[in-house]
Amino acid sequence: MAQTAKNTESQHSVNGVAVDKLFGTIDAIKKTPVIATFKFRASNKWLDGGHNRTIINNYYGTQQEHERKKPFVLDADEPPILLGNDQGPNPVEYALTALAACVTSSIVYHAAAKGIRLNSVESRLEGDIDLQGFLGLSKEVPRGYKEIRMFFKIDADASDEKLEEIVQLGPTYSPVYDTITRAVPVKVKLEK
Amino acid sequence: MAQTAKNTESQHSVNGVAVDKLFGTIDAIKKTPVIATFKFRASNKWLDGGHNRTIINNYYGTQQEHERKKPFVLDADEPPILLGNDQGPNPVEYALTALAACVTSSIVYHAAAKGIRLNSVESRLEGDIDLQGFLGLSKEVPRGYKEIRMFFKIDADASDEKLEEIVQLGPTYSPVYDTITRAVPVKVKLEK
Repeated sequence: MAQTAKNTESQHSVNGVAVDKLFGTIDAIKKTPVIATFKFRASNKWLDGGHNRTIINNYYGTQQEHERKKPFVLDADEPPILLGNDQGPNPVEYALTALAACVTSSIVYHAAAKGIRLNSVESRLEGDIDLQGFLGLSKEVPRGYKEIRMFFKIDADASDEKLEEIVQLGPTYSPVYDTITRAVPVKVKLEK
Repeated sequence: MAQTAKNTESQHSVNGVAVDKLFGTIDAIKKTPVIATFKFRASNKWLDGGHNRTIINNYYGTQQEHERKKPFVLDADEPPILLGNDQGPNPVEYALTALAACVTSSIVYHAAAKGIRLNSVESRLEGDIDLQGFLGLSKEVPRGYKEIRMFFKIDADASDEKLEEIVQLGPTYSPVYDTITRAVPVKVKLEK
């Protein structure tokens, strides 16, 4: 029975990704590219000091609006050393979270599409920021990250050379990696 | 008494930001710039399919290591339409969260430094992604956001012209805005 279950799973799902649906989606997008157009959204409310709250819920994709059963609520704050009360990760830590999650999922999905089974994927990230930028004390110091480093440990039945190919699926396909490394235009507007 | 409390508060805190400490920090950094060097960190573990978990805890700054009392745990997943189970916001939604939180805090802190009291700051964000990029179906389509739009509503005792100046403090000083709009190098390495 275990063998049967495994065989059934292997026909449809690799790394927990339903590859039959993934290939179905790819075929559908090739025929009708407009269904690949997505709009993701967030709303945020300032609470006090460095403490604010983001709500994630609806998004647009496959030519229709989608809404979760329950919104996601994400508090951000600064640690006391940056004049906050540690009521959530700080914004630049959320940026690392986005990057970690996205590069990981990109590895997992694209490995699945290639039929490569992964046993585990772990990473640690570190990014350098000089607060002279944020504080406006220097024109030469960037406000944001100078550099971000990601270190992956991947366990799979694969050679060292193959593992190097697998990890590079992340930066090759990850939307957040691309968003951070490419310079995306962000428009900020005041509404009445 | 209320008047006294308000006066006491106004000497030290504006918008919940302890401005006396903020100016103290700025003076200390001007004397010893190296204390402004920070390293923020995250670790991530893949769980299944599009589901993975990021842990945020320690960071380096003011020439020492810091650790929270309790780590922050952030799950990411994809919605069913993107072959996940909605066990958390997806990675590109975390990127919007980072941006929303950071631009908001930058407005709040820099307004405080200028002595501008804010009553409320709310924003909504929308970003465009074409999944043909992530899926590798087109070389011309970017993998990440094509554009992100942020719409702010700010209530403060200020003229419309002044409000326009206040909202622009966000993109002017925000580390995540800079990280997304500037093209930050991200190094991805496999560890044994």
